[in-house]
Amino acid sequence: MSLSSISKPIHNDLETFNSIFKTSMKSNVGLVDLVAKYIIKQKGKKIRPLLVLLSAKACGVVSERTHRGATLVELLHTATLVHDDVVDNADQRRGFPSINAVWKNKIAVLMGDYLLSRGLMIAVEGKDFDFLENITQTVKRMSEGELLQIKKTRKLDIDEGTYFRIIADKTASLLETCCIIGALSSTQNSEYVSAMQKYGVALGIAFQIKDDILDYEGSSKVFGKPIGGDIREKKITLPLIHALRSVTKSEASAIRALLKKINSKNSVNEIIEFVRKNNGIAYAEEVMNRYANDAKDALAVIPDAEAKTSLIQLVDFVVSRTS
Amino acid sequence: MSLSSISKPIHNDLETFNSIFKTSMKSNVGLVDLVAKYIIKQKGKKIRPLLVLLSAKACGVVSERTHRGATLVELLHTATLVHDDVVDNADQRRGFPSINAVWKNKIAVLMGDYLLSRGLMIAVEGKDFDFLENITQTVKRMSEGELLQIKKTRKLDIDEGTYFRIIADKTASLLETCCIIGALSSTQNSEYVSAMQKYGVALGIAFQIKDDILDYEGSSKVFGKPIGGDIREKKITLPLIHALRSVTKSEASAIRALLKKINSKNSVNEIIEFVRKNNGIAYAEEVMNRYANDAKDALAVIPDAEAKTSLIQLVDFVVSRTS
Repeated sequence: MSLSSISKPIHNDLETFNSIFKTSMKSNVGLVDLVAKYIIKQKGKKIRPLLVLLSAKACGVVSERTHRGATLVELLHTATLVHDDVVDNADQRRGFPSINAVWKNKIAVLMGDYLLSRGLMIAVEGKDFDFLENITQTVKRMSEGELLQIKKTRKLDIDEGTYFRIIADKTASLLETCCIIGALSSTQNSEYVSAMQKYGVALGIAFQIKDDILDYEGSSKVFGKPIGGDIREKKITLPLIHALRSVTKSEASAIRALLKKINSKNSVNEIIEFVRKNNGIAYAEEVMNRYANDAKDALAVIPDAEAKTSLIQLVDFVVSRTS
Repeated sequence: MSLSSISKPIHNDLETFNSIFKTSMKSNVGLVDLVAKYIIKQKGKKIRPLLVLLSAKACGVVSERTHRGATLVELLHTATLVHDDVVDNADQRRGFPSINAVWKNKIAVLMGDYLLSRGLMIAVEGKDFDFLENITQTVKRMSEGELLQIKKTRKLDIDEGTYFRIIADKTASLLETCCIIGALSSTQNSEYVSAMQKYGVALGIAFQIKDDILDYEGSSKVFGKPIGGDIREKKITLPLIHALRSVTKSEASAIRALLKKINSKNSVNEIIEFVRKNNGIAYAEEVMNRYANDAKDALAVIPDAEAKTSLIQLVDFVVSRTS
């Protein structure tokens, strides 16, 4: 199932969105425009606006307000990517050199602030108070989630509970907000809104688990995200958490010691091998599939229609993607 | 005239503000709390909340809404300081090591995002739609102003017009917003709101010109801001702009060449000497005093009262401060 076939019920809306999104970044400052054009060229998968549009369509009709919501979340998402690349010292994004690599950290920080404020301005201008309520809470949760991860990563002491807290905040909160905003833009039925919220949370968690699995088995060719990147940054994610608790204390200590001083491709490979051998990936897949099913189940109350089918297919797409 | 005597008409309100501000940064994430406590310890001059409170008092009565506004602007200001230190690679802030120096860039970026979202959440929760309208526009202007400065600084081609555009966006816009928000929180008289806005813009521009003058003649002892910092970063501000246009083309080219390759304390001193000799500081002071008078004149329509007197004294404080 490809993203373009999933997008079919809202194909025209997605075109409209793309043009609104481009316009939303325009600025009188040349440098801002230049960086904005570079961002547009990088072309992400646009999963977040897709979610907003599909959620709106599944609960009613896509409106101008839906488009404002889609633009808001994509601007916010882009802002966090630009800031994340500073946070992670990343030099690649979607196969292109990252903003901080091309223009240095200072421009990346300011550009992120600019994009975030542009998104919020759109909601303010549209008087979408309910969007703002959700989105400001989301920005807070995303930054807290990242900060919690950084702190825990330093101490190498992430257990499964902490892992879920981190990914619920840093990743799932935005997908949750996409679904809520989409639903709010097209229905006043609170049962629908709550169903879409549950769907968004479960999808978001499955999405991040998949991301973390891909770090152990993904291909670096398609989107330029190298395998083992998390390991190099000493990030402990679900596959490794499971593997570590499946072995003896001394074996786990040895792996932790290796992670602490990681410095070569060989040691990265050794950790990947350790995780594979101890069923870390299989376990993470099992948990991910549970969340994927939760996401689909949440849609039970939503009326059957093309958009709902697409939301179900999107879950399958997310958990079966290879990059 | 000291800040504490200027604050007299709103002394109790300022105490209330301080306690609300502290509470506003609380988080369940330990690292966030730790950095927040560090920020509180750094203690800024709190000119922005002071402006909000005095503007409210000058136009009416300080209310809960005024306090939300004061908290919002100080959180936003703190967020931009934290991001600015990343942008400027600064290792000191208010005499303390900067957040990025203690915790690295990544934490500074995320902490800035966190503080900004907390500020916006307070306005959202209070349903202060008018505050949000002003503040999101301000965040946009501040980041655009900084980006314009970076771009122009690279080319070393800042003229007086560009300089005013940059400082109106990067500095004056927030002081303007403080005054608008304060006024909006206590009056519906649009003449008062517009007077406070004019006051804020003029004060903001005078404030930044003073900052730029201090870079040429300030003392580094009090707040740890070293003299010549802008010059080291090749930032061309009003004193240098004026000096450069007062000399022959070849003399100006020599100074530009020196600035381009600046690398020693001697060359910094040479540029400071050049600016002094060519009346750069005297000219900047003259322009600054013009804006200071504009700020005071803007208050003509505001009823005479203690708070108005304080706003006038604040102008004098800003232009005569030594750090």
